[in-house]
Amino acid sequence: MDSIAYVNGSFVPLSEAKVSVLDRGFLFADGIYEVAAVLDAKLVDNASHLARLKRSVGEIALELPESLQRIEEIQKELVARNKLESGLVYLEVTRGADTGRDFPFPKGVKPTLVMFTSVKDIVNAPAAKTGIAVITVPDIRWERRDIKSVALLAQVLAKQAAAAAGAGEAWMIEDGKVTEGGSSTAFILTQADVLVTRQNGREILPGCTRKAVVKLAEERQLRVEERAFTVAEALAAKEAFITSASSFVQPVVSIDGKPVGSGKPGPMAGRLREIYVDFARATAV
Amino acid sequence: MDSIAYVNGSFVPLSEAKVSVLDRGFLFADGIYEVAAVLDAKLVDNASHLARLKRSVGEIALELPESLQRIEEIQKELVARNKLESGLVYLEVTRGADTGRDFPFPKGVKPTLVMFTSVKDIVNAPAAKTGIAVITVPDIRWERRDIKSVALLAQVLAKQAAAAAGAGEAWMIEDGKVTEGGSSTAFILTQADVLVTRQNGREILPGCTRKAVVKLAEERQLRVEERAFTVAEALAAKEAFITSASSFVQPVVSIDGKPVGSGKPGPMAGRLREIYVDFARATAV
Repeated sequence: MDSIAYVNGSFVPLSEAKVSVLDRGFLFADGIYEVAAVLDAKLVDNASHLARLKRSVGEIALELPESLQRIEEIQKELVARNKLESGLVYLEVTRGADTGRDFPFPKGVKPTLVMFTSVKDIVNAPAAKTGIAVITVPDIRWERRDIKSVALLAQVLAKQAAAAAGAGEAWMIEDGKVTEGGSSTAFILTQADVLVTRQNGREILPGCTRKAVVKLAEERQLRVEERAFTVAEALAAKEAFITSASSFVQPVVSIDGKPVGSGKPGPMAGRLREIYVDFARATAV
Repeated sequence: MDSIAYVNGSFVPLSEAKVSVLDRGFLFADGIYEVAAVLDAKLVDNASHLARLKRSVGEIALELPESLQRIEEIQKELVARNKLESGLVYLEVTRGADTGRDFPFPKGVKPTLVMFTSVKDIVNAPAAKTGIAVITVPDIRWERRDIKSVALLAQVLAKQAAAAAGAGEAWMIEDGKVTEGGSSTAFILTQADVLVTRQNGREILPGCTRKAVVKLAEERQLRVEERAFTVAEALAAKEAFITSASSFVQPVVSIDGKPVGSGKPGPMAGRLREIYVDFARATAV
């Protein structure tokens, strides 16, 4: 059944939700996006997503067409209109559609705001039980990966390569170290029971789920080190897993066909997943 | 007045030309584009643009929804419908709109083909006489700049910085050398009368106008060296200029506020511009 989308002030069937071919999101990837999970018909960790949205648009000098408060209202209205119990709300802001195509920022053009939802049973995703295979690819992206822009072609190619190999994610490698997954953060649990994930910087997106999981782990007296790690370290680790808004915490059981740890989902990934789901439900709005 | 655009088989007013919010060009920058100049109501160097289009889509495993021959027919029909004498035809191919948003290539989805035109008097552009100022910015783009994708956010930011500084182009710098302009190729003419432009590779887009100008210069016994050059070399050169489909050949008179050569448009840029315009008119289809 057709769901309802939001486009610049109007709620319309998704199949009829359109933007101008002059929209700078379509012509230049001149836009920013966020994806928030929905559990029990509520938005998960949404303040974190909206804070990141504000930061991303600021980094490319793009003004939001609506306040963060109003954006959250629209997210909630979309969840309600679509009777969405469990799934995702996607939102994209672009620098709008000018009367023609010219690279510099247009003047007097209102930014575009688009939102739509999708149904997804994130809590009961089979991959949480089976784990996922990961492949590695060179990280060929631009130098501002901390900006959550829609210029995602490199990630599309990475995740297509993963899909073609029957894997659930591609870990991108730069200077011999894992940066992150195509649409997730990479974690390992060392043999010394230290959780390791790359420190934030321009090399990776500052993951909202990453941030929450690190905080939840530290609150439980788990040791966390924020530093880059190699594939060899990941293969020698007890466990590996990914985090993202659309998968929460998912165990990684192999990398490039080689088993991680036992080759089966590990207890720490399972435990952190449960902790995260509890946090998500308890704080959703 | 509203011009006519082409969207997936239909000719529609540009103001009504739209794509789905699920179009992968809008969501992922999963698309390729080309811009061809129009002179005397004919397409300039179009075979070169279509050959590059074919190469670009091949590099990201995107199938064209129409043959190159049919694409050229549509370009011509658009020029005719818009009675375009002088200007540009923009075309974009994306991996189409699936029923939702997922990174890997969708199955059974027809690619999107969009085209529109703009009026521009390229031959009599004032900048051809006055020359343009150039600023330099770090080249922060991804590693496959040879693919003419719509993932152009880095170029948008570079050209916005140029516009804000009152300059006409931004030259992007990597490892101390100029890669190219935000939407043009960079050339210099050394004191020894050698034309220098960077060799093709993954670091730059293989410019169609670059290719034609190099060929036209060599046919006239001018010495051409294809190699990277520094800003210091450009400032010590007799002349500098840029080439692109939308500007042909344009003199560069300053870089970061420092004059190139005499600080005025040089004779070589003027001569190559005339030669290119003659070639463009003679070979347009």
